[in-house]
Amino acid sequence: MSCDFLALAQPGVQKLSPYVPGKPVDELARELNIDPAGIVKLASNENPLGPSPKALEAIRGELAELTRYPDGNGFELKRRLAERCGVQAAQVTLGNGSNDVLDLVARAYLAPGLNAVFSQFAFAVYPIATQAVGAEGRAVPARDFGHDLEAMLAAIDAQTRVVFVANPNNPTGTWFGPQALSDFLAQVPESVLVVLDEAYIEYARGDELPNGLDYLAQYPNLLVSRTFSKAYGLAALRVGYAVSSVQVAEVLNRVRQPFNVNSLALAAACAALDDDDYLQRSRQANDAGMVQLEEGLRALGLSWIPSRGNFIAVDFGRDTAALNQALLREGVIVRPVAGYGMPHHLRVSIGTEQENSRFLAALTKVLDA
Amino acid sequence: MSCDFLALAQPGVQKLSPYVPGKPVDELARELNIDPAGIVKLASNENPLGPSPKALEAIRGELAELTRYPDGNGFELKRRLAERCGVQAAQVTLGNGSNDVLDLVARAYLAPGLNAVFSQFAFAVYPIATQAVGAEGRAVPARDFGHDLEAMLAAIDAQTRVVFVANPNNPTGTWFGPQALSDFLAQVPESVLVVLDEAYIEYARGDELPNGLDYLAQYPNLLVSRTFSKAYGLAALRVGYAVSSVQVAEVLNRVRQPFNVNSLALAAACAALDDDDYLQRSRQANDAGMVQLEEGLRALGLSWIPSRGNFIAVDFGRDTAALNQALLREGVIVRPVAGYGMPHHLRVSIGTEQENSRFLAALTKVLDA
Repeated sequence: MSCDFLALAQPGVQKLSPYVPGKPVDELARELNIDPAGIVKLASNENPLGPSPKALEAIRGELAELTRYPDGNGFELKRRLAERCGVQAAQVTLGNGSNDVLDLVARAYLAPGLNAVFSQFAFAVYPIATQAVGAEGRAVPARDFGHDLEAMLAAIDAQTRVVFVANPNNPTGTWFGPQALSDFLAQVPESVLVVLDEAYIEYARGDELPNGLDYLAQYPNLLVSRTFSKAYGLAALRVGYAVSSVQVAEVLNRVRQPFNVNSLALAAACAALDDDDYLQRSRQANDAGMVQLEEGLRALGLSWIPSRGNFIAVDFGRDTAALNQALLREGVIVRPVAGYGMPHHLRVSIGTEQENSRFLAALTKVLDA
Repeated sequence: MSCDFLALAQPGVQKLSPYVPGKPVDELARELNIDPAGIVKLASNENPLGPSPKALEAIRGELAELTRYPDGNGFELKRRLAERCGVQAAQVTLGNGSNDVLDLVARAYLAPGLNAVFSQFAFAVYPIATQAVGAEGRAVPARDFGHDLEAMLAAIDAQTRVVFVANPNNPTGTWFGPQALSDFLAQVPESVLVVLDEAYIEYARGDELPNGLDYLAQYPNLLVSRTFSKAYGLAALRVGYAVSSVQVAEVLNRVRQPFNVNSLALAAACAALDDDDYLQRSRQANDAGMVQLEEGLRALGLSWIPSRGNFIAVDFGRDTAALNQALLREGVIVRPVAGYGMPHHLRVSIGTEQENSRFLAALTKVLDA
């Protein structure tokens, strides 16, 4: 009779439900026994343009060094990020994707007896990272699927150490403006770390959304989290980063695994950061794709949550499990969000013009069936 | 006056001293203002052969998919590892390097009030991962720089959840045989997880060292940790893995970040695993280099700790800080191990014949100076 190693695990870990990623193309191809090339995946908010040529070149230039450990300090990437962000390199913490950054925050600042506040319908990693360290996650009811910042403020108590705020939010695409952020930051206690997740901020235009970096100097309790997985097109490589006060960055870097970002990822991220043309094309493709999807959905008489991300949560007014299965059979992968408490919605990433058309055609077909 | 975010961090985190990696070539080149190509780095136990051609080919084949998230389940790599190891895929946990595996163990099974047992002079990540979650690290005095397994058994108490054991051990290169492992496992309480770190096991020959995988069926509290960073030559990519009971793997996979191993790393590791020729050449080069270094050290009248790894800890009988600085000025990077409580030793990785010669020549010069 062997020991129960689930019962021996930490209480928070025992209650963890792992993150459910978007279904990989290869997995669906195996299940349906079809060619992966015929599958359209609009499930993980990936950049439809394909990789930045500059990032590819940087990776090729690094291949001779595969046997060498990465630069554990990420010197060059931090230098470039600091320059772009107008901060010191010591304010930057690199993550193995922004998931890693969120995890570092939880490990550094949360524990049993403490809590983190976030919104209903917010990114699944906030409750997971909180639960993993045995802290309490406080999901504050959303307002029209978006963050209710006033209610989130009211949920903060003496045991709150972290507030996770996403702008725009995933999976809803909702957002808030500069004044709302200013008002919020002014009222959060200075001992509570505000994690402003800007994974999708590069898709925002003009000054409709605030740039979190502008608030760092005034609020030492602010941390801005960003990623190379979306507009920069490097999801495969796992590079995210936090910009914060030097002190918070020093704490997070203590917890960070020394080689958390690998060498090819570091090189590609440096190159992607300099590829303004790619970023520009990402935004244009996203704007055009958003119009295409919205027009197609409108023609089908469907509604959706207005979004400032590279995705759109479509409201079908009924449970979408069967619909999702029907789309999978058509070789179209979108994201069920029942796990987020949104069983009537499917989240659809904005793809290329052709991918969007394939999705709209498949949707038309399965809705007619 | 802003808040003290160091004081707000978890007590274990506040006391963390980050891991000190081997000095990167580029960093020394910047400091000395010399060409990186002229520097010999024997500081991080990296494979001197350069990358496996099959791994490179696999990476190139994956580059078109950079915008896609990795397979969060690592289906193909786990399948191949399971086949190689003679276990089920559900027994495998993939890590962003084996550092990640060690971290997952600590996060799942350690907490304040609990402790982990490991040896004096063992891998720095054991105490760091333990400290990061606020648990007590019990460093058991070594015997002739190697693990004193009996003393480690004696250090286990009711609050012990994990024992970290490395075979061979880094940074000493010491090892123990199959009988010692059998005796040890037979006496460890079944509720204590034994983490057998076999990062360097591929360099072992014959049956001098036990193969930890052979003991998994009998001991559900055993976890074997391995890496692609050494004999497989993929340190840049960060791929490690644990093989354990299904139950322990399920617990670790809850804590694991869903995309902890990136796409290029997954592809390269699959290919490297099949490259028997590369592995064979790695071992041969290591054997030859070990002889070369030992002969050179003997000629200089130096002694060292016999090693079964791809490195050797040289005993200079006096503090080595100045010696290390002198070697750096010669463009040779080795690893000071004063941080491991071994101020009289320098750890030297086994390089190519030319690199070993450069090291020996530089050492001769600075010892004569």
